[in-house]
Amino acid sequence: MKVTVNRRITFNAAHRLNNPAWDEETNKRIFGLCNNPNYHGHNYVLIVKVTGDIDRETGYVIDLKILKDIVDQSVTDRFDHRNLNLDVTEFKNLNPTAENIAVVVWNILREKLDSKFDLSIVLYETERNFVEFSGK
Amino acid sequence: MKVTVNRRITFNAAHRLNNPAWDEETNKRIFGLCNNPNYHGHNYVLIVKVTGDIDRETGYVIDLKILKDIVDQSVTDRFDHRNLNLDVTEFKNLNPTAENIAVVVWNILREKLDSKFDLSIVLYETERNFVEFSGK
Amino acid sequence: MKVTVNRRITFNAAHRLNNPAWDEETNKRIFGLCNNPNYHGHNYVLIVKVTGDIDRETGYVIDLKILKDIVDQSVTDRFDHRNLNLDVTEFKNLNPTAENIAVVVWNILREKLDSKFDLSIVLYETERNFVEFSGK
Amino acid sequence: MKVTVNRRITFNAAHRLNNPAWDEETNKRIFGLCNNPNYHGHNYVLIVKVTGDIDRETGYVIDLKILKDIVDQSVTDRFDHRNLNLDVTEFKNLNPTAENIAVVVWNILREKLDSKFDLSIVLYETERNFVEFSGK
Amino acid sequence: MKVTVNRRITFNAAHRLNNPAWDEETNKRIFGLCNNPNYHGHNYVLIVKVTGDIDRETGYVIDLKILKDIVDQSVTDRFDHRNLNLDVTEFKNLNPTAENIAVVVWNILREKLDSKFDLSIVLYETERNFVEFSGK
Amino acid sequence: MKVTVNRRITFNAAHRLNNPAWDEETNKRIFGLCNNPNYHGHNYVLIVKVTGDIDRETGYVIDLKILKDIVDQSVTDRFDHRNLNLDVTEFKNLNPTAENIAVVVWNILREKLDSKFDLSIVLYETERNFVEFSGK
Repeated sequence: MKVTVNRRITFNAAHRLNNPAWDEETNKRIFGLCNNPNYHGHNYVLIVKVTGDIDRETGYVIDLKILKDIVDQSVTDRFDHRNLNLDVTEFKNLNPTAENIAVVVWNILREKLDSKFDLSIVLYETERNFVEFSGK
Repeated sequence: MKVTVNRRITFNAAHRLNNPAWDEETNKRIFGLCNNPNYHGHNYVLIVKVTGDIDRETGYVIDLKILKDIVDQSVTDRFDHRNLNLDVTEFKNLNPTAENIAVVVWNILREKLDSKFDLSIVLYETERNFVEFSGK
Repeated sequence: MKVTVNRRITFNAAHRLNNPAWDEETNKRIFGLCNNPNYHGHNYVLIVKVTGDIDRETGYVIDLKILKDIVDQSVTDRFDHRNLNLDVTEFKNLNPTAENIAVVVWNILREKLDSKFDLSIVLYETERNFVEFSGK
Repeated sequence: MKVTVNRRITFNAAHRLNNPAWDEETNKRIFGLCNNPNYHGHNYVLIVKVTGDIDRETGYVIDLKILKDIVDQSVTDRFDHRNLNLDVTEFKNLNPTAENIAVVVWNILREKLDSKFDLSIVLYETERNFVEFSGK
Repeated sequence: MKVTVNRRITFNAAHRLNNPAWDEETNKRIFGLCNNPNYHGHNYVLIVKVTGDIDRETGYVIDLKILKDIVDQSVTDRFDHRNLNLDVTEFKNLNPTAENIAVVVWNILREKLDSKFDLSIVLYETERNFVEFSGK
Repeated sequence: MKVTVNRRITFNAAHRLNNPAWDEETNKRIFGLCNNPNYHGHNYVLIVKVTGDIDRETGYVIDLKILKDIVDQSVTDRFDHRNLNLDVTEFKNLNPTAENIAVVVWNILREKLDSKFDLSIVLYETERNFVEFSGK
């Protein structure tokens, strides 16, 4: 009997989409305004979904304070009010599209989370664009 | 060809997280502010998800008025403007965490709903914390 | 390693629920206010969910500008500010319930989308009523 | 010491923007898609704002159940699941723009509400377009 | 040239509407479900609105970190996860309607805030019911 | 009889809070994470509020398509997917706090808008922080 608990977290970051293997014109054509060399930014909304059994003593799948601490230390403190391209090592050589950010966040959290839990990620870049990743 | 129809319902309730098998100090350490003996409360948001075939005559999976009546009579009328710990029998001996409330609501609705339908539940305790249960 | 990208799109349309095989009284009893012969309307919210591999060059599953163009041309331009019963051919002989609209939209988009992608649809008729369809 | 209480109410309606004094081409040019002769529709969100003194016995400015009954009987029951142009007498000779709907709703409610209260209206036609009227 | 800065804050609390000067029947008739002697609860959303001149050095009307600290210490820490009737002294002899909570919060914050600022409060009890107070 | 029409518009931008007259340490102390030299960013939500009489022929205060064009050309096209500090001339020597952005946007739009209209601005930097300016 598996229940999924969800925690919604926000971080605000600058980023730029760019493929260094391409020339400037190709980057502009493919990434449009997102290629602005001076960066733009977003209020990212991250939903962390953890699935597991309900602990009989607490009635929790996972204590959300503990989950929040894990996410804060490993994601929010490193991504919030940062420039993803310049300040976050994972994106030094990886284009910070919403898709890639979701995979990076999932990998970070997967390592920190007990393997008895399933993990999924939803990441909103804007109200209209969002991505989901469950490691499969 | 299965379609899922969703109905969003709200109820406002008081609750307190507590494990009577623990001493006061342990309850405070584990449940923090949620252990307040005088209770606190939430605007719960419940999404009932019913999956089935589209009826050819109506174009409905299930008439949402009928689904609403089922949820109102078996859940909302019993949970809304109530103290979950004191007024709802299911929580007399069960800690009303979001996880446990979701399982209780799912069990109540599963009994009332034709077995030809699949049933899932999403329950928001706050904007940032929510749980999902599908009986599996 | 599959990621789902989501695009949220809105369209505003009039519709009426009616089964021409039934008499007027039956239609009123089953569909209630939704059977009003003069129509009523909704701000529909459509979420298009496309699942696939991340392209290594772009970091995209699918360029959302391309996805938006597909949805605009095949759905929004034909449904937005229209009367679904009178102006959209798919509903000439099909009751425009949320369930049926979701299936119609899914079929339209499935044809336009590369078969390497999985496709799901979420369609909100109101804040409280929404449906999901993934072609299964 | 004046407090404003707000009640949020929704109704779903069809409408068409048209000026019968103009020819078809002018109507199309000015009103665009909103001029569709077969109508389109919206999920309108109405916020009724009532300002007054707090009653010492109840702690209420106005009992929201009473306010809801007034709005339901005089507005929602007449506008919801209706075609504003065809079914609501106030728009027989008045273009049902958001601005005009707001003024009509304000006038209806002003008559029903004790003159000791101030009244304002907010009306959302879509998430992006909304109007406000306070009778001044 | 006055700018208003707004900070949105949430707290979750239990409460009960009751007038001790009335008999039980009258309280039930006037306050309905809100009179439940075992309490119910809400996710309150508070918007604190501070109006003043923009400081030329900082570009701020007021540093929102400072405003947040004031609200946290004087309101959130005292109201969040509390029973308003039993745990918050201001409601020992005052019915905790949304109207009265708004006036209480305004009075608390008015004392803590530099008199050069104007202050208004918006308080949501539910998505559909909210109140506003500006001390006038 | 004045009605206010509102148009909601979004733009995504990078920015950094910094006062060049201060040393690095003071900037860090006052602006905290917002002082990151590599920038961070936001999904800004702008609500443009235009107050005027209802035109008897159109039923509009102002055609929202015209208002949208004005805002797009003078604000969105210049701010969206930009670095406010580096790409927008108004902030070359002005700290791009929400307060200052609101005043800048108001001044830009005030010039473009017929003087018969009153103009106000609401600007959300995040879900929790937003500012308002009406030129007074």
